[in-house]
Amino acid sequence: MGTVTRLGITLGDPAGIGPEIVAAALATAPPAWLSRIVVYGDPVPLERGARAMNVRLPSVEVVGNGLGDTAIPGRPDERAGAAQAGYLEAAVSAARRGEVGALVTAPISKTWARRGGFAFLGHTEMLAERLAARDVVMMFAGPKLKVALVTVHCPLADVATDLTTERVRRVVELLAESMVRDFGHAAPRVGVVGLNPHAGEDGLLGDEDADIIAPALAAPCPPAQLLGPLVPDAAFRDAVHGRYDALVAMYHDQGLIPVKLVDFDESVNVTLGLPIVRTSPDHGTAYDIAGKGIARTVSMQRALSLAVEMLARREPPTG
Amino acid sequence: MGTVTRLGITLGDPAGIGPEIVAAALATAPPAWLSRIVVYGDPVPLERGARAMNVRLPSVEVVGNGLGDTAIPGRPDERAGAAQAGYLEAAVSAARRGEVGALVTAPISKTWARRGGFAFLGHTEMLAERLAARDVVMMFAGPKLKVALVTVHCPLADVATDLTTERVRRVVELLAESMVRDFGHAAPRVGVVGLNPHAGEDGLLGDEDADIIAPALAAPCPPAQLLGPLVPDAAFRDAVHGRYDALVAMYHDQGLIPVKLVDFDESVNVTLGLPIVRTSPDHGTAYDIAGKGIARTVSMQRALSLAVEMLARREPPTG
Repeated sequence: MGTVTRLGITLGDPAGIGPEIVAAALATAPPAWLSRIVVYGDPVPLERGARAMNVRLPSVEVVGNGLGDTAIPGRPDERAGAAQAGYLEAAVSAARRGEVGALVTAPISKTWARRGGFAFLGHTEMLAERLAARDVVMMFAGPKLKVALVTVHCPLADVATDLTTERVRRVVELLAESMVRDFGHAAPRVGVVGLNPHAGEDGLLGDEDADIIAPALAAPCPPAQLLGPLVPDAAFRDAVHGRYDALVAMYHDQGLIPVKLVDFDESVNVTLGLPIVRTSPDHGTAYDIAGKGIARTVSMQRALSLAVEMLARREPPTG
Repeated sequence: MGTVTRLGITLGDPAGIGPEIVAAALATAPPAWLSRIVVYGDPVPLERGARAMNVRLPSVEVVGNGLGDTAIPGRPDERAGAAQAGYLEAAVSAARRGEVGALVTAPISKTWARRGGFAFLGHTEMLAERLAARDVVMMFAGPKLKVALVTVHCPLADVATDLTTERVRRVVELLAESMVRDFGHAAPRVGVVGLNPHAGEDGLLGDEDADIIAPALAAPCPPAQLLGPLVPDAAFRDAVHGRYDALVAMYHDQGLIPVKLVDFDESVNVTLGLPIVRTSPDHGTAYDIAGKGIARTVSMQRALSLAVEMLARREPPTG
């Protein structure tokens, strides 16, 4: 103890809006944070991003690989793909060495990263494998709603068959743990949303609520209080009104429709289940506006401030 | 033309909160409406409802059958079940004779109505059959969102298989027609929400968006403008921000989660596809609070005022 770990920011695709939103987030970061931050990205695109956003880049450690220095905004290529894969690899290696305790990841291009040698589907899959995480969970944390997803990127027709009691339980546990450790709740009220209309209405509208979800809530999960399976069309309204501190949603749109409705672009994507903190903004590389200085920066700024907050709660000051 | 049709209000279960919310809605109705209103229900429960709510019952035509006069709040029985079935039957007969152009229905008990001789699953099924409607559509109309449902009461696992291009098209047409005729939009922008995350993302997350929903939008639907299939987690947010005048949702919770979130209890249930206007409050008989004078009345009041508004648009004053 006593060793303060660093917070890494990966620049993402240097041909996307990553350099701009990272530069903007650094420019508005409180000076106290800057000494803990390492940017994994090349200085040329980062400085160009700062100029595009018309902000002054503060002094911060930058670890590059040189591959991104030739990238042109809005024109992704293989070399930029290799650059972004390299930034991520350097950040993960530092995390494996225990030097980095939190990662904020700017958007990569799955296509170009892969052409540049990246062997994973996306950020989350790469982090899970390289950091030996058994289960990872996608969570959205915004001012009004905190929601973790049991299933994520699957067709609606497959949701019911993909659902297992074990997975629901694991998501409940990881969310409950994070609410205590990362968000500072002493006894979080975790609501678990049902799958079917009216949470199945005693089997009339589906069996999964009673047969798959309810058993996942049978064992207690101290210090969290588990509530559910909740009627979906009431659960999110009730959470916004303060009845639950966080919700477990069964499928992508069950969680994302309300999140985008009430938290709009203030919601931050959080990956639970990794040995480190990981947050990211909720958008892509946006090549169409890259380099123009018009990217919305609020999501990256919130991803950074949430990562700082989570890291601080995991590692209270030892001074 | 020239004959002004009446607006019927059915009292629902006389042992439920129906008498209280109907009395409260009548007490706050503008005098100009009262001459057009017929209440299908017995005077004894209606007057008791007014006393419970501490409101003065205005002078209004009441058509009863006597069966509800012995009903006790909170204690449903077969006789009260027969009473509520009778109110509905009288109202529908008047509608069939062309005397009633709009119906506002207070909640029935499906169980007790059936025991009292009601041969249908619910209000909507009864109205569709007795008024010879080929297709009916459940719509929710609130201050911020107007949403029609393609599928309603089915398990989530069955939604994808229940979806057909014909049904999507029919819901689109009925919603578009209602937006013009009932809600006064000259050229409504009707958004059609996709089924899968990201509306299928080119088939990666499901085929129904491209294969079933998109073909339903191929033919124009003047004067409405059809937009979709929309990415579900953006569509509702965009509708609230004014990009669409109404949305077609593919399943119960896709529509109801956002409706309850932003319109809370101000949303009115509207049945599209009937030859008459039909609205209803969005709650049940609430036996646990019946007779106590504490029922929330806003949903019934809004159901009544929306029915008045829709009827007025369908039948402009001829005086």
